[in-house]
Amino acid sequence: MISPSPRAPAAFAGWLDDTNDITKAFLAAGNVPDMINIAGGLPDPQVYPSPQIAEIAARAVTDFPAETLGYGPLNGLPELRAAIAARFSSDLLHLTSDNVLITTSGMQGLDLIGKVLLDEGDVIAGQFPTYLGALDAWRPRKPAVRKLLLQSNALDFTDVMRGAKFAYTVPNFSNPTGRLVPQSTRLALVEAAQSTGAWLVEDDPYGGLNYDGPLPPSMLTLSAQSSAAGPNGAYEGPVIYLGTLSKLLVPGLRIGWVIAAPRMIDALTLAKQGSDMCTSGLNQRMACEILKAGLIEVCNPTMLTLYRRRRDTLCAALQRDLSPWFDWDVPEGGMFVWLTARDQQLNTDDLFKIALEERVCVSPSSVFDAEGRFRHGLRLNFTFNDEAKLDEAVRRLARATERLLTV
Amino acid sequence: MISPSPRAPAAFAGWLDDTNDITKAFLAAGNVPDMINIAGGLPDPQVYPSPQIAEIAARAVTDFPAETLGYGPLNGLPELRAAIAARFSSDLLHLTSDNVLITTSGMQGLDLIGKVLLDEGDVIAGQFPTYLGALDAWRPRKPAVRKLLLQSNALDFTDVMRGAKFAYTVPNFSNPTGRLVPQSTRLALVEAAQSTGAWLVEDDPYGGLNYDGPLPPSMLTLSAQSSAAGPNGAYEGPVIYLGTLSKLLVPGLRIGWVIAAPRMIDALTLAKQGSDMCTSGLNQRMACEILKAGLIEVCNPTMLTLYRRRRDTLCAALQRDLSPWFDWDVPEGGMFVWLTARDQQLNTDDLFKIALEERVCVSPSSVFDAEGRFRHGLRLNFTFNDEAKLDEAVRRLARATERLLTV
Repeated sequence: MISPSPRAPAAFAGWLDDTNDITKAFLAAGNVPDMINIAGGLPDPQVYPSPQIAEIAARAVTDFPAETLGYGPLNGLPELRAAIAARFSSDLLHLTSDNVLITTSGMQGLDLIGKVLLDEGDVIAGQFPTYLGALDAWRPRKPAVRKLLLQSNALDFTDVMRGAKFAYTVPNFSNPTGRLVPQSTRLALVEAAQSTGAWLVEDDPYGGLNYDGPLPPSMLTLSAQSSAAGPNGAYEGPVIYLGTLSKLLVPGLRIGWVIAAPRMIDALTLAKQGSDMCTSGLNQRMACEILKAGLIEVCNPTMLTLYRRRRDTLCAALQRDLSPWFDWDVPEGGMFVWLTARDQQLNTDDLFKIALEERVCVSPSSVFDAEGRFRHGLRLNFTFNDEAKLDEAVRRLARATERLLTV
Repeated sequence: MISPSPRAPAAFAGWLDDTNDITKAFLAAGNVPDMINIAGGLPDPQVYPSPQIAEIAARAVTDFPAETLGYGPLNGLPELRAAIAARFSSDLLHLTSDNVLITTSGMQGLDLIGKVLLDEGDVIAGQFPTYLGALDAWRPRKPAVRKLLLQSNALDFTDVMRGAKFAYTVPNFSNPTGRLVPQSTRLALVEAAQSTGAWLVEDDPYGGLNYDGPLPPSMLTLSAQSSAAGPNGAYEGPVIYLGTLSKLLVPGLRIGWVIAAPRMIDALTLAKQGSDMCTSGLNQRMACEILKAGLIEVCNPTMLTLYRRRRDTLCAALQRDLSPWFDWDVPEGGMFVWLTARDQQLNTDDLFKIALEERVCVSPSSVFDAEGRFRHGLRLNFTFNDEAKLDEAVRRLARATERLLTV
């Protein structure tokens, strides 16, 4: 009865042909014994306050069974939305719950922005080099990505942003470069957004990881001062701000938030409905209780001390072993040190492969370029491994570099 | 410094212009006092085993802190994937972990299928009428939706499925019709998938809610008997099976799964990476422990008894008050009774609005039609409200129908 020679199954969508699946290669590398992985952007699990979170989890289900175990509102628990609005409000920035959408991780925020703004082939102005995950999220919409070079001296971004649906930036300790974007550049970006009509995405997973001092104001705050407010005082400016619990405390709850003008929040909510209907009520209630208990603030000093020391260890080892070939800035925060080879012919895609043989996994710069052409940079993570491993990782990377250059 | 007359922000993507936001209208209706909502597909929170789940939540974090609070593998916890493979394997169906992807809700499975299979304008063959949420998930890809009429006598689906990327079906107590698709139709669908190359999506949220007897075999099982197996015995057939904890136990964990050929699982995993990176480790570990403890099986009899009684109450009230105008079948399972007006001129979009005035919220059939043209049907839910409310809801709906017909 069943046809003996079945037809080949229908083809996958076009974007899958040219997708970058290096994250999966990284994960596979993670299973090799004795591999030191400084490629990813992982926290050290020892910073997770698991006893407190275990108690919060049990209490959330016991005290709020219908809310935690049932379907929730599409846009998030009202109490959590209000808490996020309050947390980010200041004298200079007035936010209401209408400015907030709860997302299933910061990554979902990126996915939803692509869904609501990008028709096929639309233009994005992306801070260059660009976070790999953002490129992944938007690849199915086949966007054209223009390079937004924030270290340019001209500080006029209108040409790059004109005609773009949005600009994508990570101003606090950018991924992959670890760079802190200064206030003057932030202001110039806000101005370019307002004059071109491009939305301005401010992706801020790393803002809580500032090792050396306070941060400039967010573009969300800067733009509020020059944007009209909505009827009930809600923010109506061009910035779409993305936050997440992942680097502030724990990634495992997959809780993120978007702060934006209410009409953008409404569009993102409609898109979220078709993505996962609503974010887990349990995880949202836990996030509420975590914020209420001030758990982020309790854990932050320990996290900063640990990660600051690791950053210093990594940079000292780099100075010892890799300074003949690479340049880098010591990052003031975040999770990464960004190396660029002095010799632009030094191909870090090749170095990546030799480094794997030396049992150290790093991120080559090509994955942070939508066109895959930037091939003389490396991103190194310093938050996940202890100091001895970081030191050994750099020794292995130096051996790999020597091998590459003597081929 | 900031331009005084900012440019209007960049426009939203095209699909948002013609999206159906009736779910939001439903949610707004939910806030009207004394409204009885029989529109949604909600479980009754009284069936949630919250004491057991509270304990499982705390134990999960305490016993597996890195796994529950950190980033997990893109495709899901290995132990949960193995448990799902084992749960759905039988003498007739051999599954391995390579056949399983864990998703953040069943809805995410639908979203990911659209991402990996649909280029703009591609063709879907959708069981008609069609689950609203599936239409929402795929709308951003602007697919052409052909009607797959499963109650047709011809039982030859090759014409409708030829050239389609996939067929979408809900064989167990279809949403919205509540219909159980018989084995002969399932076999015909599998055969059509194999002869046309269209993938066959078997969306199965309601399979556990069978009030009157056992189910026919799944299309996943039926197709295994006529598909070659992969090298390690993995399933390689054309069915993409979607499951979820939402109706089996609790929606709040947002845990779903996809079972399919390994190459489909790989593509979906790549798409998931750009959607939310990974599903919450806490929620996945809890799902593992829920399966291990047999909590679904413990709770199922109570759930069936409660919902069976409510179905019977709703159908008795319909017989009493609505039989002059509507026809329906008593569903053997699931959450819905599907009414069709004998007079095809009776417009249920209009009835929906008058019913809201009578403080009862129902689902008009237009939302289950990609073209919005089917306007003489209604979907009623019987799982969320108690028997007194269901009875009163039907009285209100009858008053609304009388008002509609005397206008």
